Amino acid sequence: MAEPTSSSGAVNVPPLLDLTIDNITPNTIRINSQSGDARLTYVMARLVTHLHDFARETRLSTEEWMKAIEFLIACGKICSDEFILLSDVLGLSLLVDSINHPKPVGSTEGSVLGPFHTHDAPLLENGSSMTSDPEGEPMLALCTVKDTKGNPIPGVTIDIWETDSSGHYDVQHAGRDSPSERCVMVSDEEGRFWFKGIKPVSYPIPNDGPVGKLLEKLKRHCWRPAHVHFMFKKEGWDHLITALYIRGDPYETSDAVFGVKKSLIVDLEKVDKETAERYGVMEGIWLLKHDFVLTTEKETEELRDKLATEALQKLGLNLKLVDHLPVPDLD
Amino acid sequence: MAEPTSSSGAVNVPPLLDLTIDNITPNTIRINSQSGDARLTYVMARLVTHLHDFARETRLSTEEWMKAIEFLIACGKICSDEFILLSDVLGLSLLVDSINHPKPVGSTEGSVLGPFHTHDAPLLENGSSMTSDPEGEPMLALCTVKDTKGNPIPGVTIDIWETDSSGHYDVQHAGRDSPSERCVMVSDEEGRFWFKGIKPVSYPIPNDGPVGKLLEKLKRHCWRPAHVHFMFKKEGWDHLITALYIRGDPYETSDAVFGVKKSLIVDLEKVDKETAERYGVMEGIWLLKHDFVLTTEKETEELRDKLATEALQKLGLNLKLVDHLPVPDLD
Repeated sequence: MAEPTSSSGAVNVPPLLDLTIDNITPNTIRINSQSGDARLTYVMARLVTHLHDFARETRLSTEEWMKAIEFLIACGKICSDEFILLSDVLGLSLLVDSINHPKPVGSTEGSVLGPFHTHDAPLLENGSSMTSDPEGEPMLALCTVKDTKGNPIPGVTIDIWETDSSGHYDVQHAGRDSPSERCVMVSDEEGRFWFKGIKPVSYPIPNDGPVGKLLEKLKRHCWRPAHVHFMFKKEGWDHLITALYIRGDPYETSDAVFGVKKSLIVDLEKVDKETAERYGVMEGIWLLKHDFVLTTEKETEELRDKLATEALQKLGLNLKLVDHLPVPDLD
Repeated sequence: MAEPTSSSGAVNVPPLLDLTIDNITPNTIRINSQSGDARLTYVMARLVTHLHDFARETRLSTEEWMKAIEFLIACGKICSDEFILLSDVLGLSLLVDSINHPKPVGSTEGSVLGPFHTHDAPLLENGSSMTSDPEGEPMLALCTVKDTKGNPIPGVTIDIWETDSSGHYDVQHAGRDSPSERCVMVSDEEGRFWFKGIKPVSYPIPNDGPVGKLLEKLKRHCWRPAHVHFMFKKEGWDHLITALYIRGDPYETSDAVFGVKKSLIVDLEKVDKETAERYGVMEGIWLLKHDFVLTTEKETEELRDKLATEALQKLGLNLKLVDHLPVPDLD
């Protein structure tokens, strides 16, 4: 525990007395600026500034403040994923992904991770079935993963997950004893991966908690359009979190978590006789074909730094990038 | 649950497709603007704008975002009061109090409520003892509550609470079976209330949770200077949440939760022989004397509206007050 004098001794912290609507912000920022970590100092300064400006611009009432606190408490009580959902429905998740994983033209765009990825999905051989839902409409997925020049990328680990035909992920069922409707695959020498799943369905995000109540108050629906999640990982390649959306879904243009991009909307086909024989599935079932395009970590990093520098200049902020993250440029 | 078309049908929500770092904000605001509640719409719009601007200005990394989510999850797990503490150490609680309870010159200023007020404190007769701590240094408190013209206000309900001599509130002790170091009193016909307590001590705010870890990371101490909390309630009078701070405390100018105001710092005296006999206490124990000054709800409301109008004009915001809260002025 710090000694009485350390806060005023360590940096130039003015006496925190007689704080008012106006001087509370610089004083809070100053007492938060003692860590010696320039990034932490900057992030905290911007956080406090925005938090205080929000209260000042809205003249936030004590009752509204208390409701916000109660909302956060309720989020904390319901389950760990409620805060991710909150970030999702406020557009923050999509924004953070866009900032961190800019995509050069021609590469596959990202989408929101959502709260339903798990780390226990089975590693399946290409061609395996990841569904255990007899009610789902069978779907064969034939995919490739390539670089921006069209070269196949072998050995990419791909997490794939979707809901069952009732619109629930396995983890949403009380009696879950093993993973279903999810798997991990690895792309082959030609960059291919293929699996049997079910045609995805649109579904409501969990709406029995505080985030659901918020959407209701805002008269927003809580639906996501039908999609399959994909996550691509390989050393040296930019981590890609994305999803494919089935064209024509009623929620295609009003996704509750802002995940849809035009380039990620796909048309399902039907499996023809030849394909059916080749992959050992019934003719006429749904067919999802897609070619994913990854960028290298280096490409992404350079593009991210370039876009960050441009954006910060445009905002008129005198910042420099240290470890690819902005901090004030005091030189 | 809303029908598929309701979101696009109800208001002019553009298709939420191809959202980028730049267009995510107006689009999120627009889909949040369907409730028909102008205040909710405005508060959400400012919240989303500040949240997104924060991410854009810091180019918030995915890792930092995840740490923030984990921080909120940890706050939710530890106990309900962690979010209030978070608001306190970020200066938000003091700011919200300042906005909502502006004090005309001559009236008693407010301070932070903190997380330790309870609703089970016993109603005690004036002159009673609210302490059950034999280790504490006995203190007699002689107080009055008056209006800004110096007239006594009888019948004011006053919640009073402080820590024991170990620096803990009763609720922080595992085996708490009844309230201690807290009570409720009512001012008499001459606006007086008086009680026996102990000399308050400085104490660390709870620092074993995520907020404590945050302060450590920021190299901030977690101490509050010695104080006694007071809360005044009477129909027609502005609800006053305040505290008296004992002069000379080592943390007087660096309160972890920004609660101290010069006008709330008091000098303790010693009880003389006459006072000792009159109030049935030992001569020479500590004496806290203070005259509190309340404002009417009407005075506060008018001052709050006036200050809000001035502040919003200064910010260049075209707003009007509805039910004393700003909303966009669209007329």
